[in-house]
Amino acid sequence: MPELTSDRETFRYRSVEKHITQMIQTGALSLGDRLPSLRKLSTNLGMSISTINQAYLELERKGIIESRPRSGFFVRRNSTRLPRTEKSPSSMKEPRPVTRSGLIQSHLEAVGREDDVPLAVIAPGPELLPLRELGKITAGIIRDDPARAMHYAPIPGCPELIRQIAFRSMENGIPSAIDEPVITAGCLEALYISLRSTCRRGDTVLIQSPTYYCFLQLLETLGLRAIEIPSDPENGVSPADLAHALSTFDIAACVLAPNYNNPDSSLTPDEAKQEIVRLLAERDIPLIEDDVSTDLYFTPNRPGTYKQFDQKGLVMLCSSFSKTIAPGYRVGWVLPGRFRKKVLEIKATTNVCTASPSQMAIAEYLRQGRMERHLKRLRRALEKQMDTMQFHLKRYFPAGTRVTHPTGGAVLWLELPRSIDSVDLSYKARAQSIGIIPGVVFSTQDKFSNYIRLSCGAPWSEKLREGLEKLGKTTHDLLNLQEK
Amino acid sequence: MPELTSDRETFRYRSVEKHITQMIQTGALSLGDRLPSLRKLSTNLGMSISTINQAYLELERKGIIESRPRSGFFVRRNSTRLPRTEKSPSSMKEPRPVTRSGLIQSHLEAVGREDDVPLAVIAPGPELLPLRELGKITAGIIRDDPARAMHYAPIPGCPELIRQIAFRSMENGIPSAIDEPVITAGCLEALYISLRSTCRRGDTVLIQSPTYYCFLQLLETLGLRAIEIPSDPENGVSPADLAHALSTFDIAACVLAPNYNNPDSSLTPDEAKQEIVRLLAERDIPLIEDDVSTDLYFTPNRPGTYKQFDQKGLVMLCSSFSKTIAPGYRVGWVLPGRFRKKVLEIKATTNVCTASPSQMAIAEYLRQGRMERHLKRLRRALEKQMDTMQFHLKRYFPAGTRVTHPTGGAVLWLELPRSIDSVDLSYKARAQSIGIIPGVVFSTQDKFSNYIRLSCGAPWSEKLREGLEKLGKTTHDLLNLQEK
Repeated sequence: MPELTSDRETFRYRSVEKHITQMIQTGALSLGDRLPSLRKLSTNLGMSISTINQAYLELERKGIIESRPRSGFFVRRNSTRLPRTEKSPSSMKEPRPVTRSGLIQSHLEAVGREDDVPLAVIAPGPELLPLRELGKITAGIIRDDPARAMHYAPIPGCPELIRQIAFRSMENGIPSAIDEPVITAGCLEALYISLRSTCRRGDTVLIQSPTYYCFLQLLETLGLRAIEIPSDPENGVSPADLAHALSTFDIAACVLAPNYNNPDSSLTPDEAKQEIVRLLAERDIPLIEDDVSTDLYFTPNRPGTYKQFDQKGLVMLCSSFSKTIAPGYRVGWVLPGRFRKKVLEIKATTNVCTASPSQMAIAEYLRQGRMERHLKRLRRALEKQMDTMQFHLKRYFPAGTRVTHPTGGAVLWLELPRSIDSVDLSYKARAQSIGIIPGVVFSTQDKFSNYIRLSCGAPWSEKLREGLEKLGKTTHDLLNLQEK
Repeated sequence: MPELTSDRETFRYRSVEKHITQMIQTGALSLGDRLPSLRKLSTNLGMSISTINQAYLELERKGIIESRPRSGFFVRRNSTRLPRTEKSPSSMKEPRPVTRSGLIQSHLEAVGREDDVPLAVIAPGPELLPLRELGKITAGIIRDDPARAMHYAPIPGCPELIRQIAFRSMENGIPSAIDEPVITAGCLEALYISLRSTCRRGDTVLIQSPTYYCFLQLLETLGLRAIEIPSDPENGVSPADLAHALSTFDIAACVLAPNYNNPDSSLTPDEAKQEIVRLLAERDIPLIEDDVSTDLYFTPNRPGTYKQFDQKGLVMLCSSFSKTIAPGYRVGWVLPGRFRKKVLEIKATTNVCTASPSQMAIAEYLRQGRMERHLKRLRRALEKQMDTMQFHLKRYFPAGTRVTHPTGGAVLWLELPRSIDSVDLSYKARAQSIGIIPGVVFSTQDKFSNYIRLSCGAPWSEKLREGLEKLGKTTHDLLNLQEK
């Protein structure tokens, strides 16, 4: 009865396949993980090695796993993802005042909230922060030198932290960084100070579109106007688009993310960066660079920054430790180029200086050489989390959904079927305690009304899977409702 | 030989007098301290009780000490002070743009510097901060809940700190404070956010004159114009002056210090505060109140605030813990009245939220009820330090020098002979590593060119005495130079 045997065989290897798929679905196995050896699984499941082998080969055929010579089988990257988000149509229009404030404000309330399915706020989950190490260092700092921890720091920052950041900047190819960094309370403060150092109310600022909604709100509160050029998930910002904008409008400053732009994770190639810096230098236009995500690269090497091509001190590199070690410490910095004096003046009149214990603790953490090891772990974890998210997005979201395929960072940008109103979806999600950010807040225009941004900061969990399942179902329901 | 005896007697009681005076000069004895009993000093010095008594009576006659029935002799307040600074002539002129930036910047460099005779920065010396207690609490907080300490706080602040501040505000007579406080990175950030919530570039802001130079720099960086009304060291701000300014100029907001105005320590009486709040309410003009020094009262009771008379939500009370427990923690707050929404928007776009460990530690410090005991000690210490400073100013400064006689706070405002250029003096002092702030930076006008501000935050020391002696000598030299 070969057919019966075959049926039974099929049933068996299908059950193995299902077993492995479930492990991936529950996060027990994720990107890059090695599958159990044929022998081990054969023993554990009480099946023949050839059955297990057949199941693995079938999973490989489906692109879910891959075999590596003499190493075994591994969960494959991007094995089951939605198709890529495509480049959005060119979006340059007249500069316009920014008026997203109300909507943005309602989403900012998610900051510091703990009861949600955490897809809204971009920050690594606590499991990925060096809680014990940094905590111990902080407690030690305060015990050993309470007088300094409780006293004002100098306005530019604690010297030992400035040194560490200058050193790291040099390692990242920015040779002029010695003594240049000014410490701020996070990257947003660095951006805020940079904008105030270079623009006045009514000025026009060039941004990429989509862009981080907090920039838009910042532009709005400063009374600045925005001109948007497209950000392509695959190729970032194009020098040609920038050149066109420069020749058309009177631009006071640019705000660009070199790598893993929030929300579309776009990376502008280094040659394009260099060309953009050159174009701006010709016109003496400052470029404010949001470098907060660059350390989160999944590629073998760290991508470049605009700052490394800066020869005129026009690039203001802004960054922080909020996406890597301690968002709540509020420590960031700006490499302010020729605007240093103005930057210090604005820092001094905003809040005098940044909190001393936070600065001292992070300086010591860096000095002890703990950052690189931590970043390696963090990058691997984020890449896995993102991959698991991709897998489940593909499972739960309706056909016609697309998503970015980032090579770094911690966010996914989901393009839903065109008829979906993502603001509506975000309110329905909120009612189920799921925090997501609707696409419209990432632009002054309305072209992202069917997009949502999802943070991949939190380690994979059943709660997250359920959240994505509910979100997918709610999206299906919205679609079905429209079809009736 | 009665004459010889008398001479010897005179010599003896003079030596006792000198002994006591030296103890006061070196800070071994200061304001309110009880002198050794007649019997004890008699034993210690090997002199008769009547000689000691004669010396004490002579010191009492000179106003240096006082006797209290059945308690003994005590070092008297204000025993040897320079005459009071007088009210400066009325100073209301056309609103003017603020342009003190360069000079102020050079003095702001003193923040966080440690090698100076510390007369420039107003903050209690480390000996007066609760280093051990707060340090222990901070270390504990980070050990017990590192995940929360390293994560973002909600934008308005950590709930437990908001509760503590609301409670303290209620105790201080501000009944509407529940849930109202918004946490900021220090008082200056509260003021900055309040100004940005109520004014736009080009607006005119009413301030008292002299006023804290950081306000002036803040007005300058925000492109605001200042109209000054006099601040009288004895009577603070006069409602009549304010009414006159309101009827003459178009004023967008006022920034006033209710008590112990920096630098002249003026206190506006509560009836005047109430009248000022009423006048502003008539015109719907916001009043931004710098309440950072009120807790440092030397009087039996805490003076009132503008906020407690506010019925229209127009008063924005700004304060912090920087002058009381931990300047370097950067924690302040604003009670924002009707401007709460705007305040949150600006806080979110300035730096998202205030550092979590700082907020959590201070909340716990307050919750444990440690603040009141600490403030009692701190007030007593500051009052003593100020008194000792007064004594030595009188010793070292030329005739014609006047000084404020504050009833709280931590600064003295010294009016030097009119011919002294205090900017010149400040540079000469700096060259001797003595940090003082020249009067001109406290006004947009030039009327305080012969004033200096001295901080009394650091505990009395020989280094401070030497610093004052040198400063006095430098002032004498400048005078002599002019007379030649």
